[in-house]
Amino acid sequence: MNYAVIMAGGIGSRFWPMSRRERPKQFLNVFGDATLIQNTVARLQGFIPPERCLIVTHERYVKQTQEQLPAVPPENILAEPISRNTAPCIAYGAARLMADDPDATMVVLPADHVVRNVQQFHRVLQVAIDKAQDPGALVTIGITPTHPETGYGYIQFDGDTAPDAALQPYPVRTFAEKPDLATAERFVDSGDFLWNSGMFIWRADTILGQMKTHLPQAYNAFAAAQDAMGTPDEKEAVRGAFQQSPRISIDYGVMERADSVFVVPASFGWSDVGDWRAVYEMREKDEHGNVLEGNTIVHDSSRSLVYAEDRLVVLVGIHDTMVVHTEDATLICHKDSTQQVKNVVEYLHAHQLAAYA
Amino acid sequence: MNYAVIMAGGIGSRFWPMSRRERPKQFLNVFGDATLIQNTVARLQGFIPPERCLIVTHERYVKQTQEQLPAVPPENILAEPISRNTAPCIAYGAARLMADDPDATMVVLPADHVVRNVQQFHRVLQVAIDKAQDPGALVTIGITPTHPETGYGYIQFDGDTAPDAALQPYPVRTFAEKPDLATAERFVDSGDFLWNSGMFIWRADTILGQMKTHLPQAYNAFAAAQDAMGTPDEKEAVRGAFQQSPRISIDYGVMERADSVFVVPASFGWSDVGDWRAVYEMREKDEHGNVLEGNTIVHDSSRSLVYAEDRLVVLVGIHDTMVVHTEDATLICHKDSTQQVKNVVEYLHAHQLAAYA
Repeated sequence: MNYAVIMAGGIGSRFWPMSRRERPKQFLNVFGDATLIQNTVARLQGFIPPERCLIVTHERYVKQTQEQLPAVPPENILAEPISRNTAPCIAYGAARLMADDPDATMVVLPADHVVRNVQQFHRVLQVAIDKAQDPGALVTIGITPTHPETGYGYIQFDGDTAPDAALQPYPVRTFAEKPDLATAERFVDSGDFLWNSGMFIWRADTILGQMKTHLPQAYNAFAAAQDAMGTPDEKEAVRGAFQQSPRISIDYGVMERADSVFVVPASFGWSDVGDWRAVYEMREKDEHGNVLEGNTIVHDSSRSLVYAEDRLVVLVGIHDTMVVHTEDATLICHKDSTQQVKNVVEYLHAHQLAAYA
Repeated sequence: MNYAVIMAGGIGSRFWPMSRRERPKQFLNVFGDATLIQNTVARLQGFIPPERCLIVTHERYVKQTQEQLPAVPPENILAEPISRNTAPCIAYGAARLMADDPDATMVVLPADHVVRNVQQFHRVLQVAIDKAQDPGALVTIGITPTHPETGYGYIQFDGDTAPDAALQPYPVRTFAEKPDLATAERFVDSGDFLWNSGMFIWRADTILGQMKTHLPQAYNAFAAAQDAMGTPDEKEAVRGAFQQSPRISIDYGVMERADSVFVVPASFGWSDVGDWRAVYEMREKDEHGNVLEGNTIVHDSSRSLVYAEDRLVVLVGIHDTMVVHTEDATLICHKDSTQQVKNVVEYLHAHQLAAYA
């Protein structure tokens, strides 16, 4: 049976001041329809039902997750006692699935991304799920790049250079960190580099087997908790498992080390919505290129985003600017500087301003 | 005896959102020391004491005026029942002074301007007061222009072109409206044009005599109220006088028509502080050219002004921008667009948003 394991532990400080420690990115409604995590679950409709969605999140976000996802059974919300990056999070999801269904295939998805073409997304997942039935196969989704983005990692695949012709998995040749612009341009020109989407598809037994080889410390920690899964002892056992696990990403800990790694190249209108500029770029604009939410008046202003909530925000002669106005804090940021917002949040933490962080 | 008549009826909508209908510009503390009207009275210290300052303001601002100027006797605050521009306002001040001191000389000053060199300001006023003792003489102050400003009216004087050499009055040749840039440049190059400061010095009997000639309707209205000045009937009599007065400025109604008009050219660091840009330019800046008030963090930002009051305002990658953040409304305005803020206030009034106006 197929299951989704949705990773929802992030902080998303680049969405400050709308995102806060107590309300991270995945719980925000930045597109005016529903929150990112709600859309992540809704996007699986007709493919994986909410009852087969697991959400792994920090324990401080369990209540918010339940409130936002009433169709997901409460026992499907897996609490991380401490944040240890993605490898322990995935080990926990796999261990829990194994307790119920030793034949489970996991579709691991970040909670805070956007996909526009849902039908194509389902087709791609099906190709990946089929491939994941091969013994030892780890499958990921690579996004055909539309521009030389420096904010994403890249995956080089082994095969012809027209991957869009047919949906199929290719062996992965290498994973590349976020590149500089010249490198990104070379990647895009080469035709065999894809954006790393952070989506993984594999059988629960396969990933646990690969972790046993490449991350034995994490594997052993969760193997010791395996018998407690689904019992009243789970919480305590999981706490121990997280404490004993190294802090490491699944990419670095397993994907870059394993042999049988495949990627399905895909184009389905994906974005990781990494900052306010990405939100701006994905949203529909008015005739002046503005995105305006809430109580806003603009005069001689263009190519800007304003989230006003209830108070009035007025722009006069302003261009290429992102304005996010919340009850106690307002961000005014040039469109080319949105990646720096995380520095502001670090500053807040470092200067006794954590109440705003 | 010398008296100040301070005109404080303005709305100052270009200081929105800090200025509101209930809190116009003259009552704002935009320089971090005291409000503009408080500074206007304080600037006369040693020259005209508060007991000889009259404040003419709309009746809705009487209470605020009393609160801000405790040293000014309450009976010196003259309430305008309706706004009728400066000529009726000055007629009221003159009529009131005549009741107490038929020999009074009036120094008429706007409540919301700034003067940096107070000593020089007093010297200039003394020269003007001396000249104002000539029969029929109306005296104004002209500011030696430092640049071809298009936001001010100009006064051409009749005399040599080195007025700074000695403080002395010159006959006025003509008054000019706010010019376009080419005209302003020509004015400044000519050497005999000055900025119109809106300050007037004359005897109370002289201005009333000139109004009798040039604005008989306004003169007659206040002549009818003359006997009620300083009595319990004053308020009612003044209401009638304002209703019967035309809506007209003293410049247009008297100064441009009278014969015996003089100007004292002066340089004492004057500004009418007409918009947020003017505030920015008069304030001391930090090393990045920023003026920051309140709870503000700036990152990679310069040449900007932020008034945050209590909430946190964060700039990232922002330049040449004026930000004014109040409890219910926030303005974000390019430094070159600050004159347009008054259009926003008109828009608020026209679109059922008067609560913000």
